[in-house]
Amino acid sequence: MRAIPRIGITLGDPAGIGPEVVVKALSRAEQLPPAVYVLFGSERVLEDEESALGLRVFPKPWPPAEAGPGPGLYVRRMDLPPGHPAKGRLSAECGRASFEYFAAAVDEATRGTLQAVVTAPISKQAWSLAGLAWRGHTEYLARTCPEAIMAFWSEPLKVALLSHHVSLREALGRVKAEILEAFFLTLDRSLLGRTSRRFHFLVAGLNPHAGEEGLMGSEEEEIRSAVGRARAAGLDIEGPFPPDTVFRRALGQPEVMVVAMHHDQGLIPFKMAAFKTGVNVTLGLPFIRTSPDHGTAFDIAPRRTADPESFFQALRLAAELS
Amino acid sequence: MRAIPRIGITLGDPAGIGPEVVVKALSRAEQLPPAVYVLFGSERVLEDEESALGLRVFPKPWPPAEAGPGPGLYVRRMDLPPGHPAKGRLSAECGRASFEYFAAAVDEATRGTLQAVVTAPISKQAWSLAGLAWRGHTEYLARTCPEAIMAFWSEPLKVALLSHHVSLREALGRVKAEILEAFFLTLDRSLLGRTSRRFHFLVAGLNPHAGEEGLMGSEEEEIRSAVGRARAAGLDIEGPFPPDTVFRRALGQPEVMVVAMHHDQGLIPFKMAAFKTGVNVTLGLPFIRTSPDHGTAFDIAPRRTADPESFFQALRLAAELS
Repeated sequence: MRAIPRIGITLGDPAGIGPEVVVKALSRAEQLPPAVYVLFGSERVLEDEESALGLRVFPKPWPPAEAGPGPGLYVRRMDLPPGHPAKGRLSAECGRASFEYFAAAVDEATRGTLQAVVTAPISKQAWSLAGLAWRGHTEYLARTCPEAIMAFWSEPLKVALLSHHVSLREALGRVKAEILEAFFLTLDRSLLGRTSRRFHFLVAGLNPHAGEEGLMGSEEEEIRSAVGRARAAGLDIEGPFPPDTVFRRALGQPEVMVVAMHHDQGLIPFKMAAFKTGVNVTLGLPFIRTSPDHGTAFDIAPRRTADPESFFQALRLAAELS
Repeated sequence: MRAIPRIGITLGDPAGIGPEVVVKALSRAEQLPPAVYVLFGSERVLEDEESALGLRVFPKPWPPAEAGPGPGLYVRRMDLPPGHPAKGRLSAECGRASFEYFAAAVDEATRGTLQAVVTAPISKQAWSLAGLAWRGHTEYLARTCPEAIMAFWSEPLKVALLSHHVSLREALGRVKAEILEAFFLTLDRSLLGRTSRRFHFLVAGLNPHAGEEGLMGSEEEEIRSAVGRARAAGLDIEGPFPPDTVFRRALGQPEVMVVAMHHDQGLIPFKMAAFKTGVNVTLGLPFIRTSPDHGTAFDIAPRRTADPESFFQALRLAAELS
């Protein structure tokens, strides 16, 4: 019998829409897979959000008094930021708080007490104001786990990105056989056993028409070589395919994932195919990390009109993959 | 009163699906805008196709005997390739023939006797076998008109490409303020008066998140500067926007066109949004040129199962823009 999974949830920046989507999504907890859900954040922020929304989520304290906690919602209380932060206002205090929630959840997940962490959005600017050395969640995770892979998951389309937050020029430089081969192996390994079938990977080329036999760029040779080696290592992988058709080829096939050569090559089609229901997944870590497909949205945070669907899907996927 | 437009149609490579989609689309001619449609190609190839499909399109000879020809279908007879080419077989003869059809239509359009040319697909390999110096239609057009712009048109989405058949690395080098400014002005001018409203252009950035204030690449400064100058010149233009959201922003708005910084940035979302109904448009020429969103498809040509929808839309758009 598989043990019940334990999923950490971070509140995100208290001034953004993070607490709102957390409370809205958890108020539909009966539609989520049974799991131990542990919220990392300020009880004050949580209660302010519940009052504003007229919703209650009733978490129990974490760690729990009993030895083997049953499915349900728990909260690991973290008493920051001070006071009642104003929605929509960028601040170092909220930056620091959102970092501490995240760091505590990652710490538990690294020690193995959680199998997954679902993160509400933080503000990179607020982290910078707080003097933090990491640009965001992914960079913090890459600190201990340089192999971390950014992937995007939805019903119609799944993609993994060879590189993410670097300039396109820098991304081009990473399309090298050794880098690709290591990436493919990590990607496959990080998904093995988590899904009902082994994934079939379709690898995008880098250049128009996948280079058209070297007429328009030669990086496809690097890709072809890495795909060959990965296949020899047992992966179910093909490519390179012309970038402008490979995503449509993958569409609607649950066990197919496209490997994109750079951020926008993967995210342009993903956001076309999976508007509002997409989930960001970090693979290649000792645990699963998911997050919604949106940011803090400071501009709309005071209105409390945020759509919790993507966050809800992030929770569901974290439980499914755990 | 606007004169009735004259639209050239080329048969494409006789061994590909060109003749098939031409005949299938023209057999629905009553659904097309009234125009003088002039087919450039071999009557033998046309008749073979009609027999195979069990369809007849009844063209009259071009140039016509009478001075002011009325709406309908005409054929400019060109007696090549020799014999009855086999479907699906690459050959220099078919390459040469498809080039001659195209060159004759372009010649008439350049002289002003046609306002548009709709091209069925040719094989770049066949052109190369025939010893032709141009890689394809676009390169031939660029010979006399280096400002030619490749754009893609569909009901949900319209995009124009700053560069097309070059490696991604080479495409990056073209993201320069002077090149962009000239491109914007040509693009706007080539559409003026052809549509009911002036186009609103949304310009994509090049880097993830449009560079995020220079953190991930600096090409957005070039784009910003060119957009500013184009706006000062009277264009309705904005940008740069993050590449992964700008296409969704444009979706479903008939008078909005996205300017993409390279081939796949524009074609990935276009092919997601406009599968099978997309039309390729060449702008910045003295005439309009459209073509379907598919190639010769030698593999399926013998089966005669090709979908003529994109070619039909190419005919319709050519008439609309003329």
